[in-house]
Amino acid sequence: MIDTINGHTRLYGLFAHPAKHSLSPLMHNLSFRKRGINAVYLAFDMTGDLGDAVNSIRQFDMGGVNLSMPFKRTVIPFLDELTPTADLIGAVNTIMNRDGHLIGANTDGTGFFAHLAANGYATNRKTATVLGAGGAGLSIIAAGASKGLSTIHVFKRRNASFPAVSDQLRQIAAAYPTTIQLHDYNDEAALQRALSESDFLINSTNIGMGDDAKLPVAEALIDCLSPSAVVCDAIYEPRQTRFLHAAKQHGCITFNGLGMLIYQGAQAFQRWTDQEMPIDDVEDALLKELDQNRS
Amino acid sequence: MIDTINGHTRLYGLFAHPAKHSLSPLMHNLSFRKRGINAVYLAFDMTGDLGDAVNSIRQFDMGGVNLSMPFKRTVIPFLDELTPTADLIGAVNTIMNRDGHLIGANTDGTGFFAHLAANGYATNRKTATVLGAGGAGLSIIAAGASKGLSTIHVFKRRNASFPAVSDQLRQIAAAYPTTIQLHDYNDEAALQRALSESDFLINSTNIGMGDDAKLPVAEALIDCLSPSAVVCDAIYEPRQTRFLHAAKQHGCITFNGLGMLIYQGAQAFQRWTDQEMPIDDVEDALLKELDQNRS
Repeated sequence: MIDTINGHTRLYGLFAHPAKHSLSPLMHNLSFRKRGINAVYLAFDMTGDLGDAVNSIRQFDMGGVNLSMPFKRTVIPFLDELTPTADLIGAVNTIMNRDGHLIGANTDGTGFFAHLAANGYATNRKTATVLGAGGAGLSIIAAGASKGLSTIHVFKRRNASFPAVSDQLRQIAAAYPTTIQLHDYNDEAALQRALSESDFLINSTNIGMGDDAKLPVAEALIDCLSPSAVVCDAIYEPRQTRFLHAAKQHGCITFNGLGMLIYQGAQAFQRWTDQEMPIDDVEDALLKELDQNRS
Repeated sequence: MIDTINGHTRLYGLFAHPAKHSLSPLMHNLSFRKRGINAVYLAFDMTGDLGDAVNSIRQFDMGGVNLSMPFKRTVIPFLDELTPTADLIGAVNTIMNRDGHLIGANTDGTGFFAHLAANGYATNRKTATVLGAGGAGLSIIAAGASKGLSTIHVFKRRNASFPAVSDQLRQIAAAYPTTIQLHDYNDEAALQRALSESDFLINSTNIGMGDDAKLPVAEALIDCLSPSAVVCDAIYEPRQTRFLHAAKQHGCITFNGLGMLIYQGAQAFQRWTDQEMPIDDVEDALLKELDQNRS
């Protein structure tokens, strides 16, 4: 199928640092192929000037670009336009190139909820607790507000960024009919109350990632959850964190971060190509790839 | 094989305008695949700032770039270094990226003679006539001098660029033990003398390209050639120009521009990857592609 690369093949890519480990090339190249789109998606490990890199999108007439750490915020001054969501969150994971006019969007949070919706979990008038309010967390919070959650409890360490995040949450809450409550991550009583009334519990921190065997909430607190609650982790390595394991033991439905990863990609793909990503094929391929890397 | 595109896949490309019709993506992608190299080669139709485009090579850590019309000369100020040949000709068709240090080379002429050598035609102490002294012509002249031709007759219209080309030819002649004689293209007597003593006759003009049924030299003059002379056309569309047809009728061995195209690519490929291009496979694929486009 590489035979079809010709003078008309269009370039898409990921700007990140590091970038080479990313699953996005696999995901998008498979989707281009399945959909008969003459394009390739490469990962670019960006160590130079970000403004120059963004200009390269225009120079090469790239179809679109994804951004990952550490460029989701810093890219904003170099773009021509932001979607309202990206503007609200202050973070961009997807750039659309409309004849050199670059529009920044954020599909992390909307992808997260699209995945839940695809699995039959509606968010309207529901309550969620989000652990962490970094880029992924804010994106999930903003998307959850836009998807009709009535209340979102946000738990964040009371560190230097606490006031700024507090401001951002106020702006998100002002844009939607959603109550957003920011709590100190150390406020165990608040955490207990929040969990007991939550339909969704979402870990957006990196606690539990890789070899980190810690939990984002004490195991005892998970007992506060209703067993009908849906528990999600933005982490997908390991596939089941200790956190998800504990929630499952408690009777909850659990999802790791793979769905969020795939659906944020699917929404970028849709914005770039006006076509749907072949979700099942992509999921199969990613699981295979992850299993290979582990073995 | 597109399955092998992953986070480690490296980008190569062509900068040209127009670019989309180019055969270089086919040639290099096939070669990457046959050699097991994790890379893709795309054509970029450059309409923006060339300096920015060259900077993109560094931004994206591209493995290498080819240049075609109209950038072979204008790219030079943006490069860090030139090979002696590229410097002599004042034209670059290949950029090597050594950790952001960009070196401009020219493989057009050396590719031309590598193709002749692969077909058993040695150039040492031979005499050649070159019609035209544009980018391709100068590249062939410089390479021919470096490959030991004793005399090169160059025929060029006496237009505004005549004095500058005359200077360049003097510089090339000074670098090698080769006599280079620049003639007015209208000097029929000189053309007659040159052809009668030439082992090689090379058309580097675009006379005879596409639907142009003209000849770069009057048909009668071809009779001045020795039938043992080798006659080459830089043109490959049509595969056999009227010029080559007439030379063949006269008994000469003829080559169209496809060999030059492939071997300039092969020399770029070798400089980028330290591996040999699979020439036969590439030739088969290009002929197939050209035949498809014609039908």
